Amino acid sequence: MSLIILVGEDIGEANLARLAQAHPDLDLRFCPDVDSFLVNAAEAEIIFSKRFPPDTLKIAHKLRWIQAGTAGVNHLLAAGIGKHKIILTNARGAHGTPIAEQTLALLFAFANRLPLLMRAQGERRQVAKQAINEKFELAGQTLCVIGLGDIGGTLAAKAKALGMYVIGVRRTDAPFPGIDALYRNDQLLTALPQADHVALCLPLTAATTALVGERELRAMKPSAYIYNVGRGASIEPNALLRALQEGWIAGAGLDVTDPEPLPDDSPLWAMENVILCQHTSGSSPHNADRITQIFLDNLGRYRRGEALQNVVDTVEGY
Amino acid sequence: MSLIILVGEDIGEANLARLAQAHPDLDLRFCPDVDSFLVNAAEAEIIFSKRFPPDTLKIAHKLRWIQAGTAGVNHLLAAGIGKHKIILTNARGAHGTPIAEQTLALLFAFANRLPLLMRAQGERRQVAKQAINEKFELAGQTLCVIGLGDIGGTLAAKAKALGMYVIGVRRTDAPFPGIDALYRNDQLLTALPQADHVALCLPLTAATTALVGERELRAMKPSAYIYNVGRGASIEPNALLRALQEGWIAGAGLDVTDPEPLPDDSPLWAMENVILCQHTSGSSPHNADRITQIFLDNLGRYRRGEALQNVVDTVEGY
Repeated sequence: MSLIILVGEDIGEANLARLAQAHPDLDLRFCPDVDSFLVNAAEAEIIFSKRFPPDTLKIAHKLRWIQAGTAGVNHLLAAGIGKHKIILTNARGAHGTPIAEQTLALLFAFANRLPLLMRAQGERRQVAKQAINEKFELAGQTLCVIGLGDIGGTLAAKAKALGMYVIGVRRTDAPFPGIDALYRNDQLLTALPQADHVALCLPLTAATTALVGERELRAMKPSAYIYNVGRGASIEPNALLRALQEGWIAGAGLDVTDPEPLPDDSPLWAMENVILCQHTSGSSPHNADRITQIFLDNLGRYRRGEALQNVVDTVEGY
Repeated sequence: MSLIILVGEDIGEANLARLAQAHPDLDLRFCPDVDSFLVNAAEAEIIFSKRFPPDTLKIAHKLRWIQAGTAGVNHLLAAGIGKHKIILTNARGAHGTPIAEQTLALLFAFANRLPLLMRAQGERRQVAKQAINEKFELAGQTLCVIGLGDIGGTLAAKAKALGMYVIGVRRTDAPFPGIDALYRNDQLLTALPQADHVALCLPLTAATTALVGERELRAMKPSAYIYNVGRGASIEPNALLRALQEGWIAGAGLDVTDPEPLPDDSPLWAMENVILCQHTSGSSPHNADRITQIFLDNLGRYRRGEALQNVVDTVEGY
């Protein structure tokens, strides 16, 4: 009997053909809708997907390996995958460029007063000279990147190339090439006051939940901006609101929020010092190709009995 | 009698003190308003300023050198400085970073669909998934920089560092380090179809007026964006409007327009594929220091009888 692979990710016909050509003997089942996903999940040994219908793990009795199409897998961990003997691999490496670029888009937008200019444009209004005098340059400023995985590492490299001074904060003391200074998570309060920009590039784990709260936000410069392109719950939401309302910090570029989607009555929508990106950072025309490549590499390893890459530690959470 | 210098530029007290300390014997007159400017222009041998009241050249009979606080000096050329025996130097080198950064802000904004996201934010509205699927990456895309002076050169270097393929277009065949391909102005129609982004970084001269018209805009990819951070009149305004309305190109990031300021009834204000920056690109907290440094260097040369730097060719116009 052929190895059954459920593809829940819409990777496009060309990438489905790549998989079929590389492994002509396998039983490849593309299941774009929930019904076909759940029917086939009962038979599949491997699932390659970004989204998982809630009951997948209850049904998938033959499942041995999940290749997630995302970097963050907290939704699968929350569904209890750690209790099953299923290997979980993520798409680490696929999203560094688009997410780092969106973060830079937000830094550049604040530096160049684009929110102000775009509001003025909508009102056919000339901007006041004084407001524009608050425009600033990123080159020479300090960026603190919290989390130096694929996304944080890509962001750090691009920011360095743009002439920024880049501080990294990570769990361990392991060196990180090309960065100006490195701190451990427990030194966060030493790193934060130095930064003009603070970018959270973190998976959601027990250790990163509410990592940034009132104490951390108050440690930032009043002129500094915070960015979250990881998971919303890494910043304590009430402290963030107060920081933005009371001027502890200058503004926030938020791809992710807590809760998400943001409720209609959240004050964040109307804040002039906030840009909301509605969890779009990872989107890219190159995603399907990159995720398929990660899966193809791992599928070869799987079939040869080798260790997979990007295996998620279900205890650590990433 | 002391050498009289009129400082019309608001360079701040620290920079005025720098000038006075470096040249304690000179008669330094800071004239922030039009009245004092015109009174003192009649006596000054040197004017260091960004703005020039209309009658300055008629009054300034002792004037031998103008150090402009701007890179573009078309306003002084239009006032007829070429007919006088006055040396004109510009602030080339002072604005490369802020203007290149604003241009990148606009590229990143379009790539990450910030106009769409910020409009949605203003309406407390979740964005449609399909709209976000049009998000793209700058890394790997092609940027065509027209004009490789301080601003265009700085932009080209930063874009290369971000992983873009960079094409330069300039008047001459002179090589330009670190660029992927180089064309002369008369090869513009060969360069334009290759680009995902086209940035005009040009002074306003006879040769650059309406350099980009219908033919050039139609030569661009329909998916491509144009940026103008030089002078508005380098793009033929009616052709630009039609290009944006009829989809010859995808959008425009315009720091400068023709005319400027943009009239209240211009269709550009309401276009969703346009970002207007209202000629703010050169603004930076570092400007006063940088322009003062250029003036200080040139003042030393002037007093030692050496050739000045950044001398404007009043025939070529930059």
